[in-house]
Amino acid sequence: KQKIVIGVVGGDGIGPFITAEAKRVLEFLLSEDIKKGRIIFKEINGLTIENRAACGKAIPDDVLAELKTCDVILKGPTTTPREGDQWPNIESANVAMRRELDLFANVRPVSVPEKGIDWTFYRENTEGAYAIGSKGIHVNEDLAIDFTVTTQEGSDRIIKAAFDYAEKSGKNKVTVVTKANVIKTTDGKFLDAAKAIAKNYPTVEMDDWYIDIMTAKLVDEKRRSQFKVMVLPNLYGDILTDEAAEFQGGVGTAGSANIGKQYAMFEAVHGSAPRMVAEGRGQYADPCSIIRGAGMLLGHIGYQEKADQLQKALDICGLYEKKLVLTGRDTGATGAAYADYVMETLSHPNLDESY
Amino acid sequence: KQKIVIGVVGGDGIGPFITAEAKRVLEFLLSEDIKKGRIIFKEINGLTIENRAACGKAIPDDVLAELKTCDVILKGPTTTPREGDQWPNIESANVAMRRELDLFANVRPVSVPEKGIDWTFYRENTEGAYAIGSKGIHVNEDLAIDFTVTTQEGSDRIIKAAFDYAEKSGKNKVTVVTKANVIKTTDGKFLDAAKAIAKNYPTVEMDDWYIDIMTAKLVDEKRRSQFKVMVLPNLYGDILTDEAAEFQGGVGTAGSANIGKQYAMFEAVHGSAPRMVAEGRGQYADPCSIIRGAGMLLGHIGYQEKADQLQKALDICGLYEKKLVLTGRDTGATGAAYADYVMETLSHPNLDESY
Ligand SMILES: CC(C)[C@H](C(=O)O)[C@@H](O)C(=O)O
Ligand SMILES: CC(C)[C@H](C(=O)O)[C@@H](O)C(=O)O
Repeated sequence: KQKIVIGVVGGDGIGPFITAEAKRVLEFLLSEDIKKGRIIFKEINGLTIENRAACGKAIPDDVLAELKTCDVILKGPTTTPREGDQWPNIESANVAMRRELDLFANVRPVSVPEKGIDWTFYRENTEGAYAIGSKGIHVNEDLAIDFTVTTQEGSDRIIKAAFDYAEKSGKNKVTVVTKANVIKTTDGKFLDAAKAIAKNYPTVEMDDWYIDIMTAKLVDEKRRSQFKVMVLPNLYGDILTDEAAEFQGGVGTAGSANIGKQYAMFEAVHGSAPRMVAEGRGQYADPCSIIRGAGMLLGHIGYQEKADQLQKALDICGLYEKKLVLTGRDTGATGAAYADYVMETLSHPNLDESY
Repeated sequence: KQKIVIGVVGGDGIGPFITAEAKRVLEFLLSEDIKKGRIIFKEINGLTIENRAACGKAIPDDVLAELKTCDVILKGPTTTPREGDQWPNIESANVAMRRELDLFANVRPVSVPEKGIDWTFYRENTEGAYAIGSKGIHVNEDLAIDFTVTTQEGSDRIIKAAFDYAEKSGKNKVTVVTKANVIKTTDGKFLDAAKAIAKNYPTVEMDDWYIDIMTAKLVDEKRRSQFKVMVLPNLYGDILTDEAAEFQGGVGTAGSANIGKQYAMFEAVHGSAPRMVAEGRGQYADPCSIIRGAGMLLGHIGYQEKADQLQKALDICGLYEKKLVLTGRDTGATGAAYADYVMETLSHPNLDESY
């Protein structure tokens, strides 16, 4: 593509703070192509909880229209209204965006080299237990029903994406995670789909486990390095990736790519921490997770080398400055200081050796 | 009650082997009251996968009738048929028994004193994502739907059980785990119910977390000891208790109590390991988990002191013989040898000090 439009969505709470830092890092890495007009940034400001509450929609129409003019989106966390909140009961903007832009693959890598962990999760991102959003049924005061929806196409495309990646990356193994022994109809369909697709990838080994025992297996230090690429229905992907990220330093350290045929969105895995902003500490929010998201964005739009450099720089910053970064609020390190540190590390002429 | 009938259900695979060992330990501890005729054991043999397949039912009618003549049941693991198996697609005997006997509270303690872990999980055991068993709908070849069902009564009774325990035990804290930010209708109902019930327990603190972040929190060594009593809808309880058990040594070390108003069933958390039996190694199966279940059974029928003694003996055996126990297949230690070791430890005159 001649021109790539990167939409930048600040979101709520600490979102605008950390997104600005991630954008600075992207500008730093892409400066030449920005000058050439190949890369264009577009700020999209309306995705705030106030706006969403005012129009009663998870994504206001004008914001959605703007999002659709972008090729890729860098998104800060958005506040999900919850019961008892001051906000009306609208759906998560996150979940809605994944569905509206048909971002079916939620790709979440977790890597802890010193622990032998190198996992990539392919989470189905548009259906399953998330399919109908908040439109479950209160049959009467005593009875509530929710639905889980699994389609053939929805299963096939995420499973293929996982197998494609396993093949291309040389990891050659895919683990399918379901609860098909109990949720037989939908999870059974997902597992069937995986078994059928596996036949087209003779070099890729497939195994499958239930989500309950899988959460135990990730804890098992001796055996967890056997897992490489995992593919999971939406809810299990949500659950297992948070656990996995904890081994890397917490959800605050993980990036998340939401990829569809037409659009792609990259985000932090953590929430919007409205309390930090209310207390005037927004500038201390740790931008590490969304910068990881920005790194995945770079790879997605064709700058794989720069993506790798950024990944490496983040690993270095993480290792040597874990205290500074993870406890920024206490040490007084701002998000801007962290981004500066990342860019300084990126400028290091011997990035390879120092690692 | 004058007479207590303990039903012993071997189940499948290694089930009959380990159940027999747990029964031996119970007989050892209850010998006096057995002589007096206060305790009666009743072997129930028909709950095998072969029988269930033959009648196409998760629990054959005659077995169910026999179960209902017991006060409490000690149950070995049963094989859950799964797609691609030699067995027809019948529901898990486990899940069916919980529903048929209305065993609404699945209580799973996980304790690792040296890590500061002392968790008790109250898993809702009859509804949620498990409510309709395998009766989801294949709308057509492309579309499958499953249902999650949450009732007011079903939520109230498990939440009350958790709060009662938190109050009585002096733990005074209950953590409610849902995914109410997305599964708003059913999980929202569960969370609402908890908030309402919490008002009746002024001395018990309540907090709530989403299941995704909760799996991360259990990994966090610095903060996980803050959790005491957790109450969860069925599926999240299934998932989180397997992860939790791993910190204690794996699902093979955890017992599980399934308690209803009329009946109660105690079981191992792990599966039936049919391969071990096929290879002729059934006698090497580790009976630790089901003996923990037997310990919970003792407490339930009023022998709390003996239950505590057994718990302590198991902790000792676990600490000093972890290798022997957990790798029984390799060291050649049989389940019977382990049960002997437990009984020997129980006979130790200074059980308290040696601990
Ligand atoms: C905020 C929430 C709606 C979201 C989800 O459940 O998908 C989050 O947990 C995530 O994993 O991105
Ligand atoms: C075997 C299976 C049906 C069962 C469940 O899902 O409840 C098991 O995982 C458990 O936790 O007891």
